[in-house]
Order: sequence, then C-alpha cells, then structure tokens
Amino acid sequence: MPGSECPKLVVSTRNQHKLREIHAIMTDLDLELVGLDAFPHAPEVVEDRDTLEENASKKAEELFAYTSTATMADDTGLEVLALGGAPGVHSARYAGKDSDDAANRRFLLENLKGVDDRRAQFRTVIALALNSGTYHFEGTCRGRITEEERGDGGFGYDCIFVPDGYERTFAELSAEEKNSISHRGRALERFAGYLAVLLEQRNEGEPNE
Amino acid sequence: MPGSECPKLVVSTRNQHKLREIHAIMTDLDLELVGLDAFPHAPEVVEDRDTLEENASKKAEELFAYTSTATMADDTGLEVLALGGAPGVHSARYAGKDSDDAANRRFLLENLKGVDDRRAQFRTVIALALNSGTYHFEGTCRGRITEEERGDGGFGYDCIFVPDGYERTFAELSAEEKNSISHRGRALERFAGYLAVLLEQRNEGEPNE
Repeated sequence: MPGSECPKLVVSTRNQHKLREIHAIMTDLDLELVGLDAFPHAPEVVEDRDTLEENASKKAEELFAYTSTATMADDTGLEVLALGGAPGVHSARYAGKDSDDAANRRFLLENLKGVDDRRAQFRTVIALALNSGTYHFEGTCRGRITEEERGDGGFGYDCIFVPDGYERTFAELSAEEKNSISHRGRALERFAGYLAVLLEQRNEGEPNE
Repeated sequence: MPGSECPKLVVSTRNQHKLREIHAIMTDLDLELVGLDAFPHAPEVVEDRDTLEENASKKAEELFAYTSTATMADDTGLEVLALGGAPGVHSARYAGKDSDDAANRRFLLENLKGVDDRRAQFRTVIALALNSGTYHFEGTCRGRITEEERGDGGFGYDCIFVPDGYERTFAELSAEEKNSISHRGRALERFAGYLAVLLEQRNEGEPNE
C-alpha cells in the first residue's frame, strides 16, 4: 500500500462477485481493489498446506512477491467438533481429490450418522502480505450440522449448516442475512479495521511498514 | 497493551452488558477486558466535542492518561441525510439538554414531516488510545426513518429506524438480528482486527508501539 499515489490492494481472486463483496465492506476506505484479472500471468498458487492460515498466507505471499503490491488472500473451512475439526482445510475435497460439493456433503453426513454432537463452525482466515510481514484476520460462525440437506441457496456445505440463533440453514437464509452473520463478513471487517489504521497512518505521513 | 504480562484493555464503560458484548466479539483474542468499575475514581469525561470521532478520542485519551493502560471508548449517532447529518453527535440530547429518548424521537419525526428522503445511518466510532497515538474504527448501518414508531425492543431511535434490506425497525428485530447488522458490531469487528495484529506482533516479540 505505501509508496504509491493511490493505495492499491491486490485481492487474490478472479471472482468478480467476491471482489464486489469486499468492496462493499470497505467503501469508506480510500483504497483501490485490484483482482487477479489485472495480472493475467500471475502464478497459480497450489493450496497444499495443512491449515487455513498457511494456505491463505502462501497465496498472499506468493502473489505479493509477483505483484510487489500489498496482497490479501483467504481460505475458508467447515470445522466439525465431533470430527476433530474435519473437514477443515480439506473442505473442498473432503470426499476425495476430485469430489464435488454434493459428494462432500454426503460424506460428512455419513461420518456424522448417529452422532449427537452436531456442533460445527465455518472459519475464514484472511492473510495480508506486506513488506513488513504477513498478518492474519479470522472470522467464525458457529452452528450445527443438520441431519439432511435443506434449502437451495448458497453452495458447498450451506444446506447442512444452521448458524446459532437460527432454525434455517445457510442455504435457506437470504443473501443479506447470511452475509451479516457470516464468518467471511466478520473476517473482512477485521481486515478492514487494520487497513483503516494503515491508511490513517499513511495520511498522517507516518511510516507504516 | 504492551508491557504487561497479560495484555489488558480498558473499556470506557460501567455497563456490564456492553462489556459482555465486546467480550463476545473478541473471545478469540488473548486479552483481558477491564471496565471502568475497576477504576472507581476515574474522571467523568464530558462528551462536549463536535464529532463522534472527537468525543470517542477525548474519552479514550483522558482515561488512558488516568489508567496508563490501552483504552477504548466509543460514541454513536444517528445521521439523517435530509437534516445534514443531524442529530449526529447530539443524538442523545437532540430535543434539548435534558431531553429523553421519546422527546428526541418526536423532535426528529417532526423535523422530517413531509420530507420524502428518509435516508439515515447509525454510525459508531471507536477510539483506541495507546502510547503511540489514537486510532479510529468506524461502523455504519444504513437505512431509513419511518413515519411513526414501531416495536418495543431496543432504545433510543431504534423504533423509527429500518435498516436497508429489512422491513422491520431495529426495535422489531431480535437482538441477534440487530447485533449482526449493527454499526456497533461492525465497528467492534474492525477494532478487533487491529487488536489481533497488535497481539500477533506482541507474541512475536516485535515492538508494537
């Protein structure tokens, strides 16, 4: 962010929807968000680490090295208490290397068959890579796994996860309701809070790295 | 926060509910929250500034000077677009020096009589006073002012404010719904994001002031 006229932040995604979502949370910050579409030759980062933190850090750091611009990346997983935190960092490929969402959900419900303790949480970790180091921001949403799928909205595990304080699954909530309680929204607000301080220091002419 | 065995944060409130609310958002941070009950002789700070930022800063800085411990304070106002941002920093005494919530609401509805543009936002500003300076974290919730009061929950202007994406007033939403979309919750998440970095740096033994 420092050293440029208008501070820029590279967001490690080619998904325009994700970019707009982040922009919406940070409209008050004087910051230009740049998606990976602006870097057509950026390396494809392999998410092969053991934790959400490490995957997010790896993505942010490799792209920071390539773009020489402050870079954020995130990783999200569903952590089921009775399964020792699984599927966690393996959420997208829980039922096998090329498994799809439906197969992953079936595998999870199978593994929880007869298990009374259905507590689980979605957890998002954002990593911000700067010259001064890499910083982490976490957001969680606690809830429980249902016995069967309910609702058409959302994706991934949304139709088998009921957040605390609700009776409906993530897939049955409106996008607005889901966003407002989501792990991802909370992690993004935390991230925005740190950026706000960096920008405030920058405007005061203080070094921020 | 730095310089003590277990990092402490003074929260400028004697309200146990507020303290619990903040604690709930920061359960993952290794931080001891201390309310003003722990400082029975702390000075009463007069909130006489012209902006939310200045009032929050004044509170945080005066109490930081007294406690010698990292201190956070907040201020919240309702800003109505057609009224040029009023009542804003004067939200608690809009209808006069000793006015109560009901009088303030009546005065606001009176001032908006016949006005079509009902857009408004709640805005919370948190100030964090440290040795290195004072930092600010903002959260807003956009919506509109109703024509009349609706709902029993909440306090202040809650029963005449409908947040964007909802048909019900803040006073008609459950505490959980209101918290999840609130200006205050968003400001607290942003604040927590900055604290998380300070604590991360502290654990790595880096200077953080």
